[in-house]
Amino acid sequence: MSKMQRIGVLTSGGDAPGMNAAIRAVVLTASQYGLEVIGFRHGFNGIFQRDFQLLQSTDVRQISHLGGTILKSARCKALPQPGGAELAAQILHELGIDALLVIGGDGSFRGCMALSHYYQGQIVGLPGTIDNDLDGTDLTIGFATALQTALDAIDKIRDTADAFERTFLVEVMGRHTGYLALSAGIAGSAEQIICPEYGETVDVADIAADIRSYQQQHGACSYIIVLAETMYPAGAAALAQELSVQSDTECRAVVLGHLQRGGSPVGSDRILATKLGAYAVEQLMAGHAHLMMAGEQAGQAVLFPLSLTGAQHKKADPFLLAWQDRVLQQHKAT
Amino acid sequence: MSKMQRIGVLTSGGDAPGMNAAIRAVVLTASQYGLEVIGFRHGFNGIFQRDFQLLQSTDVRQISHLGGTILKSARCKALPQPGGAELAAQILHELGIDALLVIGGDGSFRGCMALSHYYQGQIVGLPGTIDNDLDGTDLTIGFATALQTALDAIDKIRDTADAFERTFLVEVMGRHTGYLALSAGIAGSAEQIICPEYGETVDVADIAADIRSYQQQHGACSYIIVLAETMYPAGAAALAQELSVQSDTECRAVVLGHLQRGGSPVGSDRILATKLGAYAVEQLMAGHAHLMMAGEQAGQAVLFPLSLTGAQHKKADPFLLAWQDRVLQQHKAT
Amino acid sequence: MSKMQRIGVLTSGGDAPGMNAAIRAVVLTASQYGLEVIGFRHGFNGIFQRDFQLLQSTDVRQISHLGGTILKSARCKALPQPGGAELAAQILHELGIDALLVIGGDGSFRGCMALSHYYQGQIVGLPGTIDNDLDGTDLTIGFATALQTALDAIDKIRDTADAFERTFLVEVMGRHTGYLALSAGIAGSAEQIICPEYGETVDVADIAADIRSYQQQHGACSYIIVLAETMYPAGAAALAQELSVQSDTECRAVVLGHLQRGGSPVGSDRILATKLGAYAVEQLMAGHAHLMMAGEQAGQAVLFPLSLTGAQHKKADPFLLAWQDRVLQQHKAT
Amino acid sequence: MSKMQRIGVLTSGGDAPGMNAAIRAVVLTASQYGLEVIGFRHGFNGIFQRDFQLLQSTDVRQISHLGGTILKSARCKALPQPGGAELAAQILHELGIDALLVIGGDGSFRGCMALSHYYQGQIVGLPGTIDNDLDGTDLTIGFATALQTALDAIDKIRDTADAFERTFLVEVMGRHTGYLALSAGIAGSAEQIICPEYGETVDVADIAADIRSYQQQHGACSYIIVLAETMYPAGAAALAQELSVQSDTECRAVVLGHLQRGGSPVGSDRILATKLGAYAVEQLMAGHAHLMMAGEQAGQAVLFPLSLTGAQHKKADPFLLAWQDRVLQQHKAT
Repeated sequence: MSKMQRIGVLTSGGDAPGMNAAIRAVVLTASQYGLEVIGFRHGFNGIFQRDFQLLQSTDVRQISHLGGTILKSARCKALPQPGGAELAAQILHELGIDALLVIGGDGSFRGCMALSHYYQGQIVGLPGTIDNDLDGTDLTIGFATALQTALDAIDKIRDTADAFERTFLVEVMGRHTGYLALSAGIAGSAEQIICPEYGETVDVADIAADIRSYQQQHGACSYIIVLAETMYPAGAAALAQELSVQSDTECRAVVLGHLQRGGSPVGSDRILATKLGAYAVEQLMAGHAHLMMAGEQAGQAVLFPLSLTGAQHKKADPFLLAWQDRVLQQHKAT
Repeated sequence: MSKMQRIGVLTSGGDAPGMNAAIRAVVLTASQYGLEVIGFRHGFNGIFQRDFQLLQSTDVRQISHLGGTILKSARCKALPQPGGAELAAQILHELGIDALLVIGGDGSFRGCMALSHYYQGQIVGLPGTIDNDLDGTDLTIGFATALQTALDAIDKIRDTADAFERTFLVEVMGRHTGYLALSAGIAGSAEQIICPEYGETVDVADIAADIRSYQQQHGACSYIIVLAETMYPAGAAALAQELSVQSDTECRAVVLGHLQRGGSPVGSDRILATKLGAYAVEQLMAGHAHLMMAGEQAGQAVLFPLSLTGAQHKKADPFLLAWQDRVLQQHKAT
Repeated sequence: MSKMQRIGVLTSGGDAPGMNAAIRAVVLTASQYGLEVIGFRHGFNGIFQRDFQLLQSTDVRQISHLGGTILKSARCKALPQPGGAELAAQILHELGIDALLVIGGDGSFRGCMALSHYYQGQIVGLPGTIDNDLDGTDLTIGFATALQTALDAIDKIRDTADAFERTFLVEVMGRHTGYLALSAGIAGSAEQIICPEYGETVDVADIAADIRSYQQQHGACSYIIVLAETMYPAGAAALAQELSVQSDTECRAVVLGHLQRGGSPVGSDRILATKLGAYAVEQLMAGHAHLMMAGEQAGQAVLFPLSLTGAQHKKADPFLLAWQDRVLQQHKAT
Repeated sequence: MSKMQRIGVLTSGGDAPGMNAAIRAVVLTASQYGLEVIGFRHGFNGIFQRDFQLLQSTDVRQISHLGGTILKSARCKALPQPGGAELAAQILHELGIDALLVIGGDGSFRGCMALSHYYQGQIVGLPGTIDNDLDGTDLTIGFATALQTALDAIDKIRDTADAFERTFLVEVMGRHTGYLALSAGIAGSAEQIICPEYGETVDVADIAADIRSYQQQHGACSYIIVLAETMYPAGAAALAQELSVQSDTECRAVVLGHLQRGGSPVGSDRILATKLGAYAVEQLMAGHAHLMMAGEQAGQAVLFPLSLTGAQHKKADPFLLAWQDRVLQQHKAT
């Protein structure tokens, strides 16, 4: 690692608001050490296709507020192929890349692990995903913005739900964790939240009974259910229809979908991205970042083994999970 | 019309941002004439169920910025029933309601026409619908906010579409007119807009060819199609899948749905609603507003016969329709 | 005008949201006619300094949603100098610029008039200013966004004003017209609006009396005054202090200032800019646009003599001015 | 503490977005324990004036998204008077208030300490202030929203600053801590941040030199300075003027002022407020919350002595402070 001169950076997997702020911080920090930064485009594909650009301070001056990623993103089919990681490592060596920073999620980090068998330089991960489903960091880059996007939608839907005293089912992303669903639901005063932490299956009759007992208690009123994306395989529309029948109320579904990935990052995402980007480069220079993810825990930047970031299912806040459940139960009890 | 003393107001049909600003203006203006304002709740249902409240200046002080409607809205099943209009008229007479203001869309205005056969007071309509599908007014209350909501979503989706150089299909509301689709598409720099004004049917092969030729010209890049809600009966998801196959690109669908109805109204909606609410009451006092809609044309508040508001299919801006088409055609030509 | 081949475009004066959408429309439309578009940077300075760039379709693909202007803006000191206009014309001729499009306001259009004495090509103006103070167009590009920015601020200030039942003075831009003040005030349910249309001077004692009588009527409550920027030369802070003393309430000032110029343009600004940019190029090709501004009146794109755009003081909506005044007077009367 | 039956809640001091979500959580949680909740209006004044209301679940159904506070806020002059705390305690006893929850900042918590000498019930604080200047909690309720408001303004100002390549000075709140200034500055890619953590005085010549050397390095470009409110007693406008002279660039000031206090709370503020409101009531029931503040540290709800919340000057993130400084220094060095 003596004499690090040139590092690579790429964004991979689902894009997340804040990735650009991370790129900016990487470049500005690298510049302090006299490091050259090469940005690969379209995730790991940029390595295979030798599609890259030199990133200098002026290139990243006004990018932090932009959604998406100036380096583009993609899933890479070549890396998991037999010989893929070996080839990528070879190209990185040819290009004189002394270390590689990968901003992405679970799948991207598995790509890093594969690459590490052949690549000699340090590989450091930065947690960039709206799902907040990585262990080793309190929050991932992009989560706070996605929460805000989901919340803005729920606030708007509440207006209509209130005007018509209607039930709405709002499906949010989050993959295997209910972090986004719970957060958006709590913030949006959702009457009910359906996410994996409350159990893997959805009991439609039970929910229909909840709606009815809530409306018996409060009179005709809006009722918003936030649904984590994996919970009802037949889809939110099907669940809404089923609930309409079983609860004898009018229930509509809204699937937020890909609009949750975009948008100008909120303040906390830009700050987190800046911090982790800076920290990652510093730790790289200090030489102990190899196969680590730069995360933040309790306000402190920390390193965490990349191999463990997806080991457990990160759980949403148990305090809030329990509280929301008690609020719901109380309506039943009354 | 001698001695008008008490008027009724209600919001009916799909809620639209700005309805509250209209209610405020009605109340503040009525107060200048010493009129009492009775707000019926849940649209025409509030008449049948005698569910109403006195609205005074203090009740409407801080409501203009709120989405939805403080009077609630609903479709009314009782009014179109045999004897329904007669009963409603009778109740209005009993309550001493000298005139009725109805904030809503097409269907609500048909309700007004029915009611007018039995009700002796003036009936005035205010155009409240996000679809901007009423003749007699340049814009309806709620359209500008719905446009902004759709545009914010498209801007976010563009981030992701750009990061992945992917095709997205965004379905927006608008009923039988492409006003919202065209406006959101132009504002969002959509590569393509599919709305009734361009023809009633969707030629999937044609669109797939457009995508391919655009990407041949520009290289891999995002491609956003705004789709008016009525255009593809099988749904946006089905169309996206079909396009993926035929264009050999990855095409995803996002259906904005009910989130387009809510939200704090943008400035122009609050101003339009204020103006029309004030104007409607003034014209009521002047005695020539019966069965008229208060609209705005070329910046001037005007009256327009309620019976004609749905007569034609209001068309989206022909200049922009033609321009957008030429832009699209040019990509084909190249 | 035979064989127009190359046109120039520049943005000048105070920047306004939507300028980029206008540039995009100019380029896309010019491309339909096979015209080359040269973008001068920093307003007219770009001519003098030969600081320009070729603008092609790909350069303007994703710019409509951006605030500011990709061509930069500036006030130009060289143009009004003796010999300035002559020199600019000479450079334009040298560069083979067959026509010039200027997106800006009053001052920029005076620059166009000066240039026209020496320049042989057509000169066309596009109304780009947040002040909406140009005759010949219902709205200027940027006004709707500035209104929304001011309104968002007023909505936030209302929260605090309500919590503390306090008086706030919010100063907005608008130069010599009260268009922005009236619009923001009506939309924000301001209790009072101080703008030139109500008289050129501010009677502090009168306003203080208004505050007191309003609070006598409504009890302790928030009271928001929107102040047009030119109305109180000593500044909003001084006026707030004076009002605090004379009304014996706590009055605070917030000066929105330059944040009103920025931000992603709202939908209607992007649409207006697109329409006028396209229309200007079309009229240029048709040969009758020289020294005209492309504006919109009653939904139709129109040409209007550049020389007359600043002739009168465009007045804010008389209906709303009168209505707001009656609402205020009624509080006094009670 | 046996048989707690009725608790009081009030919001005090500067309002902060999220206070309503805290009130909602207090009421919903209290309801689980069968506690009656009395909301005092206008801070501690509501006690003295016996101005209060019973708060039930239905009263707080749709309040979390609202800025301000439904209980109003105020500074209270009566409490610090001789005999004030004694009288307040007496009234609380008369009203049968078994415990009091105070949502506010530093000054409000000092009021709690005073009250505790006479009042027998538990007193619990909830950190509600946009300044994030309380020890014992990572974040205060309202900070995240104020950061977003400041950031939105900076993003808009950047548009104009970029268009004109101008220097802007943006003054943000924060009282004696630079938390808000640093956060908004980092998130907004501010070229410079002036806050107490970098030293108590402002060296104008030094900053002017920074601006010049930055623009020598980058060419003409925007330069944004975020200024913490206490740093330049003569005011931001005076500093801007001084900088204009000394740096020979055009420097403008924007003072965000009170608009930073308002607005619909962002997701993380609503979640924090919900969590702390719920936790405070639970700890009250458990009997160990007296004279404690309910805060959050490292994701865990915790109790922290009220008397120590203002003991130290809470410092902004040292990692980011140092990083931002190195970025600035590097421009000098170059």
